[in-house]
Amino acid sequence: MWRATVLTLFPEMFPGPLGVSLAGKALGSGVWALETRDIRASTTDKHRSVDDTPAGGGPGMVLRADVLAAAIDAAEIAPDRQRLLMSPRGRPLTQSMVAELAAGPGPLIVCGRFEGVDQRVIEARNLEEVSVGDYVLSGGEIAAMALIDACVRLLPGVMGKQASGVDESFSEGLLEYPQYTRPQEFEGRTIPEVLVSGDHAKVAAWRRAEAEALTRARRPDLWAARGGQKGTKSTTDG
Amino acid sequence: MWRATVLTLFPEMFPGPLGVSLAGKALGSGVWALETRDIRASTTDKHRSVDDTPAGGGPGMVLRADVLAAAIDAAEIAPDRQRLLMSPRGRPLTQSMVAELAAGPGPLIVCGRFEGVDQRVIEARNLEEVSVGDYVLSGGEIAAMALIDACVRLLPGVMGKQASGVDESFSEGLLEYPQYTRPQEFEGRTIPEVLVSGDHAKVAAWRRAEAEALTRARRPDLWAARGGQKGTKSTTDG
Repeated sequence: MWRATVLTLFPEMFPGPLGVSLAGKALGSGVWALETRDIRASTTDKHRSVDDTPAGGGPGMVLRADVLAAAIDAAEIAPDRQRLLMSPRGRPLTQSMVAELAAGPGPLIVCGRFEGVDQRVIEARNLEEVSVGDYVLSGGEIAAMALIDACVRLLPGVMGKQASGVDESFSEGLLEYPQYTRPQEFEGRTIPEVLVSGDHAKVAAWRRAEAEALTRARRPDLWAARGGQKGTKSTTDG
Repeated sequence: MWRATVLTLFPEMFPGPLGVSLAGKALGSGVWALETRDIRASTTDKHRSVDDTPAGGGPGMVLRADVLAAAIDAAEIAPDRQRLLMSPRGRPLTQSMVAELAAGPGPLIVCGRFEGVDQRVIEARNLEEVSVGDYVLSGGEIAAMALIDACVRLLPGVMGKQASGVDESFSEGLLEYPQYTRPQEFEGRTIPEVLVSGDHAKVAAWRRAEAEALTRARRPDLWAARGGQKGTKSTTDG
């Protein structure tokens, strides 16, 4: 079974949104397991302190190397499981990293708080820093939830056969084409005719062209990364 | 007061992690307000259906334009508030967008589910699509939580004077330098001497060099975006 082990100072945040809807149903039916561990349980002093002021000065508090190392060791993570630290300094999470994580046994995820985590425990416990985006959160917990949710929906049986993650954003490096559904007319706006034509080849061609045009317009970085220029230019710009 | 209005099919997910720790304390003390609205309350048919199959075929279900438009209208959002749709197709969220949102009255945030949202309501209600990263979630709720958490920590009084968001990742377009705290020695690893030297100018120079080296090594995209090459090359590579 795919398993996420989360180390946090706020275990009461979990499962939170992961206990509802798609991820929650899969959790309830045993498709995946969530183990939440309180970092504070690994303190040894009577004040149960987990942090201290930054060496060299500066604002905020830094999570102690010895406390976090003890918490990681106590989790007794199998050597084949990845060890991640959610951090804005990390490698940006992508859908292909998500697919890799979902195909494995499931990661250990350390949620940082305060100003940061003592660099020595990152090195000594070989934590891979992963970032969910170029913004700063108050802690790693919501970032861990995003990573877990993205993985869980890819686990076998969670989305069902029909919605297999094909034709969604980042499959083939493209953003997804626009979607429409009933009613046929909404405030004077109608569904594009090709989508109600019943011509499957034309629908596929239209969607491809829209996905390419959208990716070029909104995410030139993604477009360039896939060598998109090699494609046809006969797409609908808009 | 800064306010987030969230439109979701899973109102029970909120406040969730936003009710704990930094964001939770600020919510409790009235620094910000969270209004969670159930999209399903705006259905008019007896089955209370919010979605339908995609025009043109394909897997999954699409959120109906008429239902979502009614839910947005019912929220009676002041015209100066931003209207966002969390979507992997959107503009990538950055710390500068977060700072802008935090400085405003607070956004309306629509959380998508299913295969997507009918394109016509995005256009008719002028929703700005925002993405928290290049991965696909099962819905917009955790993405909305990330956006809100990032904003709330920047609201006046939330972090306190000392931790003002200076010297953190993405300030000046750099990743943050490594942090250390007591104990002085951890498993044979010591705190870099400069940080315990008491020489503030040397500490600042070391941190700047480390932040620059880390950004160059891990995020050449960020480094290039800030025109980093104009800086000194005498940084500590590592």
